[in-house]
Parts: sequence; C-alpha cells; structure tokens
Amino acid sequence: MTEDKHRVVIVGGGFAGLNAAKAMRKADADVTVVDRLNHHLFQPLLYQVATGGLSPANISAPIRGLLSRSKNTRVVLAEVEGIDTASRTIATTSGPIGYDTLVLASGATHSYFGNETWAQNAPGLKSLDDATGIRRKILLAFEAAEQAKTEEERRAWLTFAVIGGGPTGVELAGAIGELSRQTLKHDFRSFDPSTARVLLVEAGQRILATYSESLSPKAARALGKLGVEVMTEAMVIDVRADGITVRRNEADELIPVKTVLWAAGVQASPLGKMLIESVDTGLSKSEIELDRAGRVPVNTDLTLPGHPEIFVLGDLSNFTHQGGSPLRGTADVAAAEGAYAGRVISQRLNGKSAPKPFHFRDLGKLAVIGRSSAVADLKFLRFGGYLAWQFWLFIHVLKLVGYQNRAAVLVQWASNYFTRNRSARLITGKLNWEQLTGGDGADDGRQTDTDEGG
Amino acid sequence: MTEDKHRVVIVGGGFAGLNAAKAMRKADADVTVVDRLNHHLFQPLLYQVATGGLSPANISAPIRGLLSRSKNTRVVLAEVEGIDTASRTIATTSGPIGYDTLVLASGATHSYFGNETWAQNAPGLKSLDDATGIRRKILLAFEAAEQAKTEEERRAWLTFAVIGGGPTGVELAGAIGELSRQTLKHDFRSFDPSTARVLLVEAGQRILATYSESLSPKAARALGKLGVEVMTEAMVIDVRADGITVRRNEADELIPVKTVLWAAGVQASPLGKMLIESVDTGLSKSEIELDRAGRVPVNTDLTLPGHPEIFVLGDLSNFTHQGGSPLRGTADVAAAEGAYAGRVISQRLNGKSAPKPFHFRDLGKLAVIGRSSAVADLKFLRFGGYLAWQFWLFIHVLKLVGYQNRAAVLVQWASNYFTRNRSARLITGKLNWEQLTGGDGADDGRQTDTDEGG
Repeated sequence: MTEDKHRVVIVGGGFAGLNAAKAMRKADADVTVVDRLNHHLFQPLLYQVATGGLSPANISAPIRGLLSRSKNTRVVLAEVEGIDTASRTIATTSGPIGYDTLVLASGATHSYFGNETWAQNAPGLKSLDDATGIRRKILLAFEAAEQAKTEEERRAWLTFAVIGGGPTGVELAGAIGELSRQTLKHDFRSFDPSTARVLLVEAGQRILATYSESLSPKAARALGKLGVEVMTEAMVIDVRADGITVRRNEADELIPVKTVLWAAGVQASPLGKMLIESVDTGLSKSEIELDRAGRVPVNTDLTLPGHPEIFVLGDLSNFTHQGGSPLRGTADVAAAEGAYAGRVISQRLNGKSAPKPFHFRDLGKLAVIGRSSAVADLKFLRFGGYLAWQFWLFIHVLKLVGYQNRAAVLVQWASNYFTRNRSARLITGKLNWEQLTGGDGADDGRQTDTDEGG
Repeated sequence: MTEDKHRVVIVGGGFAGLNAAKAMRKADADVTVVDRLNHHLFQPLLYQVATGGLSPANISAPIRGLLSRSKNTRVVLAEVEGIDTASRTIATTSGPIGYDTLVLASGATHSYFGNETWAQNAPGLKSLDDATGIRRKILLAFEAAEQAKTEEERRAWLTFAVIGGGPTGVELAGAIGELSRQTLKHDFRSFDPSTARVLLVEAGQRILATYSESLSPKAARALGKLGVEVMTEAMVIDVRADGITVRRNEADELIPVKTVLWAAGVQASPLGKMLIESVDTGLSKSEIELDRAGRVPVNTDLTLPGHPEIFVLGDLSNFTHQGGSPLRGTADVAAAEGAYAGRVISQRLNGKSAPKPFHFRDLGKLAVIGRSSAVADLKFLRFGGYLAWQFWLFIHVLKLVGYQNRAAVLVQWASNYFTRNRSARLITGKLNWEQLTGGDGADDGRQTDTDEGG
C-alpha cells in the first residue's frame, strides 16, 4: 500500500459496506473495511437461527474470505470509537485510521423507545449472538415447562410473546408456533407442546403495516394456523422477567409470560451521532439533524450534506427519493446503496464527478410464515400462500452470500421440510440451574458464565 | 408412568447412554435419561467445529428428538449432584430421581495431571462449547497477528501448540496446519498465514502411540506436509498465557506461543468417585477402587462389583477382556457397551438373567490428517493416505446420528473440499479489544461477557 493512493475506509461489513467494497475491488485505491465482527451476516434469516432451523454459519461468511481476492482491500477487526472529520481520521480499538473517502455503514440496533431496562428481559434479533441467545431462551422455556412444579408455572413457561408485528415479528412468531406444534410435538412427557401460546403483540392497527393492506389478514390467518394469537392495537407498556403489561382499549392486562422477544423497534448505530457531532465542531453548527431513529440524512448521491467525502449508507442513513418517504431499513436497500456508492467512488477516481442520483428499484417485500406460507408484496403483484413461500425461498437462497451457504441452506431446509424438523436445536453455554428449575426469573437467554455458545 | 414399572435411570446421553436407551425403547420399564446438556454429541468430529469446518449442529442432535418416539422414555435436562445407592436415588438439580436400575454413562473430562491452572490457557476439546471456544481462540490469534505492532508479537500469535499426540491432537494440529496453509491463504495483508508454526508436542516416543507402529511415521509425514512440526519425547512442564516450557533431552525450552490447546489427557467424570463413595458408606468399605484416570472397574456384564443393579459404561468405566488391557475411551466402545447394557436390562425384565459376558469387537482405529490423508489401523489391515481418508469419511458420516446431520455434513465437506474452504469460520461472542490489540495475555477463547456464541 503506497502513500499516494486514495484511501477509502468503509465502516461495516454488512450489505451496504460489503457491496461498496466489492464495487471497488479493482479501483486504484487502498480500501479498508472495518467491522467489530469478523463475519458478514444475512439478517433476513436470523429468525431461523433463533428458532433452531439453521446454524449461524449457514447465514454468515467471514468478511476476510469474501474480500480475500480484492488485492487492494484489507479487513480490520475493530470497533470505531471516534470520528474526526476535520483530520479525516477514525479512532478504532486498533488505532487511528486515516481516510480520503469515508463510507459509514454500521447499520442499526434495537430500540426500546427509551425503556432500555426492557432489553434484559426482551432481547431483540440483530446479530448471531442475539439469535443463539433467543434460541437458548426458547428451548430452555420448554425444558423448564417439562420440569415445572405447578400448572401456573408451566403455563407461564409455555407462553411466548413477540413484540412488534413487522416482518421480523411475524416470521419469528410463526416459527415459534411451528416449533411448538410440529417440531417438538413428541418431545415432552409432562405436557403437550402444542398447547403453547404464542402472542404477536402489535401496537398499530394491523401487522405488516408497511405491506399492502390485503396481505395483513392473509398473514394473520397463516399465523393462526400455527397457533399464533395476533393482538393488534395492543401497546406494551411494561416488560418484566415474568410477564408483560399490555394496554388495549384503555385497559391494562398483565400477561404472565417468561419468554418475551423484541421486534418492535430499531435505531441507527451510535456512529451517526458521532459523525454529526464531529461535523458540528466546526465554527458554525451544521444544519444536519438526525431523524427520530437516529439516522443520518443524505444527499441524492448518498453523501453527507457539506461533505462529499463522506458516504452514509444502509440502516444508518435516511435517504428519500424526491417526493417520497425515507427508504426502509432492509437488506435490498442497503445492498443497492452500497453498490451505488462503490461505483461513484470508483468513477471519481477515474475523473468522473457528476453521478446520477441514487434511485432504488423496489422489487417488493416478502415475509414468510411457517413452513409453507408467505406473503409477497411485489408492487405489480401481491400474493400469499404456498407460491409466495416458494418464491421467498428462492430469493433468499439466491441472495445468500457464498454458494457454500446456499448449498448448505438448501440441504438444511429440504431435510427440515420433509422431516418437519429443526435440526439446529442446540442449547449451548453454561446453564443456570436455578432459573431452569423454578427460580424467580426467566432465563434471560444469556449465559451466566463466560463460556462460548454454539 | 405407573408405580409398578421397573425404573431405569440413565445418566448421560452420549454414545453409551443413548444406545442403552435405544436398546430399551420397547422394554416394559420407565426409562429416564438425564443429561446436563440437551444434545447428544458426535465427539470424533469436534476438532472440525474447533477449526471452523463444521457447525455445532452438524455433529449433534437434541436428545429429546432422538428419543421422542420411545414412549417409555423421558428426558430430563439436569445435573447429577449426588448418588445414594442405599436408597437407590440420584440427586439432581431437578430433584431426586429414584431407580431400580441405574446406568452411569457420564463420560470423561480433561485432565491436566494435577496442573489445573493450565486449563485457563490451554483449553481441551470435549464439548461443543470447548470447540467454539477454541475456534474463537484460533481465529482471533490470526486477527491479532494482523494487527500486531511488533514482529515478535506477530510470531507469538502465529505460533500454535497442540499438547498430546493421540488421535485428537493429531487431527487438531493437522486441521490448524491446513487452516493456515490453505483456507486462510489470501485472507491477510500484514503477513503470510502459511508462516504460522503449528507444534504437536508429545511426551512419548511417537505420536498415535496406541496405533500400530508403522502408522506413526506416516502420520508425521502427512502432518509435515501441512506445516505441523512434530515434537516427540517432549514433555510440557509449564503453560502460561504467552508461552509453554517444554523439556526435551533434559533441557528446558521456553516457546512463545499465544494459542495452546490441550489434547493430552482425560479423566473420568466425577460421578465415578461419587458412586464409589456412596457404595463405601456401608458397614464395610468396599474393595472397589477407581483406576488412575478415575474410571470405575466393572464386571464382565458391565455392572459394578456387588451391585448388579448398577451399570457403568463408556469413558467412565474400566472394562477389561480376560487377559487384556482396559478398553479405550472411544465412541465405538461406548456405543457397544450401551447397546449391550440395554439388551441385558431388557432381557432381565423378560426373566432372563445370565447374560453372556460383554465382548467388544474391535474393528480398528482411524485418524484423519487434513483434507486428503488419514491412517487406518484396522487390525487385519493398516493403511494410510488418500484411501484411508475416504474410508474415514465414510465411517464417520455413517456413524453420525441423524440422517439430517449426515446429509448436511456431506454437503459441507464436499463444498469445503472443493473450495479448500472452511465455511464455519465464525467469531461470535463479545470481544475483548485489549486482548486482541496487544494487551498482555492471549485471548483465552472464553468470552468476557455473558453473551452466547454461535
């Protein structure tokens, strides 16, 4: 790496960052990808890991492996601790890294709308650790039900609540319903797993609110067949270790539930705030303000207003087509933005400097519900049921990074489907026996020791 | 479950316990399987998980799932805390469980020959958590090497020591060699991964000491091709976070190495001691003594001397054919003993009470070295190389529990082989940045937080 080369630093190896890096692999620049995890993750399938249907490695790939053939690119495993836009340097756990062009694509994290204490008892699903933690929590709940001393205790262990009726919540609730009614059918002796209650709690009027209206009832019916009770216009106002309080029609209901999962809100990575604060330390305060979810507003070429050398992509950014609403925080948007940014930067290095504005070609949305059903909102076409599910399968496998992952997932799904099994139903990590056998609180899904899970 | 039924309690869902349970699935008895983990594990392939070649779920299956169709069998996730042979009860984290026949098959754990402090810096490989911890340790060592500030530091990170030249050590060392020379070949920019040193440290005269003599040099050569340096007659006398001290030819050498893995010794589960102590609380001390590895000596029908109602199987037991040596602690022995014990118990329930003595039909031993080589010691036939490797593959896949696992592993291996990739190279769990970026100690492979790994 020579001193003269243009230095591009990409923070985040997710869909946006990875696609940006790939688009620049032949560029005349030194590219550095920084991520605090060593792997790229296919988030849309996290709920499958969380319910024991797939293994973590099926939906992830080492970033180094994906970029090993890009000779101009190096990967640094580090966490960003500061951004200095004046000196064009980011501070990381691995030391300072200087840039000429910065691409910030550090994604999003859970939002509990100010109720951060809820995180302890209602884990969200954004990372592999989240997913294996939830898997553990769900499987241990059934184990605890098997050993429960009273029927009341058993009922609480066999009640699951998923908060948030968007695609993530729908897919998670459907999978837990399927787990209890099909996969675990013959596994227990003290109770019938199909008596488990799975609640999908949505504050708004309908689940899948961002999808075409006709699809919400379809999804609710498919969920019902898997034993999921959909509660709409139901707002969660408290989350504790042994239950949640739900407000509906101005009445509050305390529901005893040991396993609560959070799929109700995300907020942008703290790097957005870090960036704006750095920019603000100039003589005059910039007029850039983060939106309510902490996202950074960007120009039509995905750069930070006033800073053409800084791109902000994916879930961290707020991009709006003229006259439209901000693009959603999904994988397809992030991937498209990453590819665009990579191209723009490459073109700049070749002397071209007036890129077309970014335009996201929306091919539609998918959400799967259990083993044979899904909804597809493809703009020109909306459909649900078995056909939608096959389409969902096809798209998801196609989009997985790495053909090894595709092959493995296809085999896994084929065998899961025909056997109605979920073959990755592992409980790893050191167990807290008190919690399992009737201690006061639910297992929070996190280990109580420093052992690694699997 | 009625009060009258004969109660069989099996402690341990490994090869011995699982096969005993399966043999009794139609018996007129209430069978309870107790394990402190929810899954059965195919230990022979743990080293593949430890080096990122397979996922944990590929080599394990939920015990409940395996026994769900055995209507007379229930599974309890619990740890055994006491054995009372007088009242025929075991104490567990799930409460007391009474038995008419007890089958103890709780396996073995690591032995550091009295140097328990070495465990911190030299983890062993007996469970999935061990494997993912080692995987993490190995991958982080390469990450640390990439970020190392001095060449001395980099060298220490790129030195790996596997202590113990038996099959586990050989397979582990070979896989790390392969990882460094093939899989990670293009992944780093500060150094060439193939310069990593992998040491296999064996105190005896040859590696694979329990195998036919002609195979040891074959294995050493195959290891050499993968970059593994075999050190024989080399005894480890100290293990620290940043190095080991090895005594050879009466000279002590301090080798700076950040990643030390233990494959040098096992000891029986503490339940052996618990059992003997319970039996000893009678009026006269029994004459049963554990062997040096803590194993329980058993009769020719695998029962505890003086206690026909107690079977001790697998790695926990010491069984000797007349005129022979104690059977080795391997999966095939445990499986055969489990099947035998299950049959004997079933026959007793049918009124038959004079079983033939147990006889283990030894079909031989296998050890694989890297992607295309192995050694096979099959008594009538000894061979090494590519053919041995194919045979090893075949046997291991066949013996995996669950056809889903077999299919998944075959696909995984096929793609790993052709791409020279290891697709499960995940680092999960919260990272300790200090350790990674040049703090004093090597990452011990264990997380510093309570997050779950994957």
